Amino acid sequence: MTADGTQAERDRLQRVLGRLALEEKQALDRLFSLLSIPSVSTDPAYHQACIEAAEWCAATLREIGFEARVAPTSGKPMVVGHWRSGQSGAPHVLFYGHYDVQPPDPRDAWNAGPFAPHLAEDARHGTVIVARGASDDKGQVMTFLEAARAWLGEHGALPVDVSVLIEGEEESGSPSLAPFLAAHGEELRADLALVCDTGQWDENTPAITAFLRGLAFAEITVTGPSRDLHSGLYGGPATNPIRVLAAILATLHDADGRVTIPGFYDDVREPSCEQLEQWRALGFDADGFLGEIGLITPAGETGFSVLEQLWSRPTAEVNGIYGGYTGPGTKTVIPSQASAKLTFRLVPGQLPAKILDGLHRFVEERLPQDARATFSGEGGSPAIGFDTQAPAFRAAARALEAEWGKKPVIAGCGASIPIVESFRSTLGMDSLLVGFALDDDRIHAPNEKYNLESFIKGARSWARILAELGAIERHART
Amino acid sequence: MTADGTQAERDRLQRVLGRLALEEKQALDRLFSLLSIPSVSTDPAYHQACIEAAEWCAATLREIGFEARVAPTSGKPMVVGHWRSGQSGAPHVLFYGHYDVQPPDPRDAWNAGPFAPHLAEDARHGTVIVARGASDDKGQVMTFLEAARAWLGEHGALPVDVSVLIEGEEESGSPSLAPFLAAHGEELRADLALVCDTGQWDENTPAITAFLRGLAFAEITVTGPSRDLHSGLYGGPATNPIRVLAAILATLHDADGRVTIPGFYDDVREPSCEQLEQWRALGFDADGFLGEIGLITPAGETGFSVLEQLWSRPTAEVNGIYGGYTGPGTKTVIPSQASAKLTFRLVPGQLPAKILDGLHRFVEERLPQDARATFSGEGGSPAIGFDTQAPAFRAAARALEAEWGKKPVIAGCGASIPIVESFRSTLGMDSLLVGFALDDDRIHAPNEKYNLESFIKGARSWARILAELGAIERHART
Repeated sequence: MTADGTQAERDRLQRVLGRLALEEKQALDRLFSLLSIPSVSTDPAYHQACIEAAEWCAATLREIGFEARVAPTSGKPMVVGHWRSGQSGAPHVLFYGHYDVQPPDPRDAWNAGPFAPHLAEDARHGTVIVARGASDDKGQVMTFLEAARAWLGEHGALPVDVSVLIEGEEESGSPSLAPFLAAHGEELRADLALVCDTGQWDENTPAITAFLRGLAFAEITVTGPSRDLHSGLYGGPATNPIRVLAAILATLHDADGRVTIPGFYDDVREPSCEQLEQWRALGFDADGFLGEIGLITPAGETGFSVLEQLWSRPTAEVNGIYGGYTGPGTKTVIPSQASAKLTFRLVPGQLPAKILDGLHRFVEERLPQDARATFSGEGGSPAIGFDTQAPAFRAAARALEAEWGKKPVIAGCGASIPIVESFRSTLGMDSLLVGFALDDDRIHAPNEKYNLESFIKGARSWARILAELGAIERHART
Repeated sequence: MTADGTQAERDRLQRVLGRLALEEKQALDRLFSLLSIPSVSTDPAYHQACIEAAEWCAATLREIGFEARVAPTSGKPMVVGHWRSGQSGAPHVLFYGHYDVQPPDPRDAWNAGPFAPHLAEDARHGTVIVARGASDDKGQVMTFLEAARAWLGEHGALPVDVSVLIEGEEESGSPSLAPFLAAHGEELRADLALVCDTGQWDENTPAITAFLRGLAFAEITVTGPSRDLHSGLYGGPATNPIRVLAAILATLHDADGRVTIPGFYDDVREPSCEQLEQWRALGFDADGFLGEIGLITPAGETGFSVLEQLWSRPTAEVNGIYGGYTGPGTKTVIPSQASAKLTFRLVPGQLPAKILDGLHRFVEERLPQDARATFSGEGGSPAIGFDTQAPAFRAAARALEAEWGKKPVIAGCGASIPIVESFRSTLGMDSLLVGFALDDDRIHAPNEKYNLESFIKGARSWARILAELGAIERHART
């Protein structure tokens, strides 16, 4: 997009970074202003505050130089903004964040009011911003808006065309998101989504989340006798569906923790050697990770590190099981049915429907003559693995390395992130997941904080990413 | 007790049987009178009817020649009666039955009022008595009272001393029974209890129930992580307690259906060859038994018939299982805990505490490092196997053979019968379980019936059993 050589580009960026440095105090005031609005989406008592936060975001976008509006939904409104260079064919990104926050409960556990943002000193992290939403996600949203403000304030232009979507229901299941994307797809579709709702590897190391596991889910119900039986009068001869179900579930993994469904691993795409090398070099504290939840031994596939098990290996989990009598005391029943809820975490390459087909066959083959199985509540979505060699991805990695002095970790995420799936499935759009949160930000908990450094360097990171995205054409040529 | 030779004894009995034949109409009227009292113990609306039924039984006992009273409890009263010969050291039996009945619901399914007893013609069984309680247990109680009435009416004496206990809470869990037995043990303790609340083998074949399986019960809770986990963020490395529990339950039986807990079968007392021979000769319809509950293949230990599996083999059953999310839809949780409720049906020789000890060790040995198990709600009672060669048992068998023209089946019962356990544990008293109900009597269901022949031949059977019990001393000498 920009064709004026490297030094000119660097100068332009330096002026933006300089402006961000000069405006730190005002930027913090603006963030505090947003943090003081109690925009809890899940509690109807805060509905008006959500409207207020949406209007605050739209007003801020207009102040920066965007066209922006508060777009109604059947729930909380969306904030939609656009800045266009007017050049046809210009690269175009869609920034996504959310203005709603988790409820502040338990309030008594806060050292100060959850919606009275303030700075505090943290033994480990230095100065931190404390308030509900400081990290999730208002602080993160503001890193981008401050970067955009500095670019537009300094140069009257952004390096790429930018649209913004800030939703108000992320903390309450995003019920309005899919219909809104469906209705406004043409307006919102961009070359790439920038999603700022994730974290860093650690306080010194940025991260780009590039692998998100998918999901397949099913409920198995095993039926034995045609009705519940008295275990005294039938115990022995009568097939017990709980025993049948337990026996099937017990064979779902082998002694090495591998899923035994035939073909389960057939389509698994392995991470590159380079990628695995990076993960191994991270020195992930597996003992600490497990110790925090009272565990010692990784239960996943042997031969894979905990990080690989989480980021790059599929799983089969039993999320729920029920059958027979589950109240207090004893009831001597042989139930007619027993059920289990299963989910499979999938990795790139695996197809939910194929995994569920495999499950059906696996179960059917293990049923004794006097039991049958039915499957219900099935569905799923495939894993997402972004091409880490794509120009935009490499551009972001360069920008983060320039800001933080080290290469970003190309991270996985064991869980799916709904917005990323929606952008892909509804708009056919990849996402660049960059965020500056830290594991100890206490999101969803009392005394949520965001490091002041996360806020400052986050804004600088976005200023750099926008510059690099704008310079992609030149890099692509080199 | 009676020392006047065999012919005199036979004559005395024949006069009693003759009197029963002459009094059939009046006996039926008396039964109808009791059946017309809606003594449903579980529904407070029928409380007064329960009192009325108790008073009816006590008045009937007094009319026959017993001392009798209605003894209050904190629930429904007990009826207690005694007839004593006055001879010290005379054999003494305690007859047990219950005057309360199941609710008649659904009333619409009855062909006539459930408390308007009447005779009907049945294609298979001829004349039947139809009313709630006709079989369970008023009809059965009256077989004994009519036998006693005939003895006392004809000879002014019974062949043995007889006490009677008729309770009013059998259909609602017998909450007052244990305290009543504890408080009145001296008054009620006899050489033997006669319990008339069971059935025949078939309409032509009497039965004495001599083997009742015991029970041991426990709830296992397996704990993995210290809290519920998101399966996306922890799935793979985190130990899932549902998987651990399923794996343990799956190993509780081997491929031959045998329980794999070490030592589980060590103390099992096998039925005698003669006993097994009788059972095998019965031609039990195993296909029909399983077919009625939608099953085809016996699931118990291979090498044992269905009847043996039910009457003489111990089992391990999972009566309930629960863990994780059990509501509608999917929740991607790895729960902290999963639980299963287990019961073991025990046979004579096995001790509940030893079986539960074996279970504890079995589970502990199978736990992975990151799971622990706790046990709760444990208890049990041993199986009961009566000595079928004891004089009273053989006396009853002779009496039944004389009445029905064939030897009684010495039957087992897969379930425990609480009154039998209470008599043994509280009063140290064995029970003789003889009843004339049939499998198709529709007890607890609409249009409950008792064959007229069951009633008539039941009374004759008790008349004979009383005679044989009185003659035990002579038989014991031969």
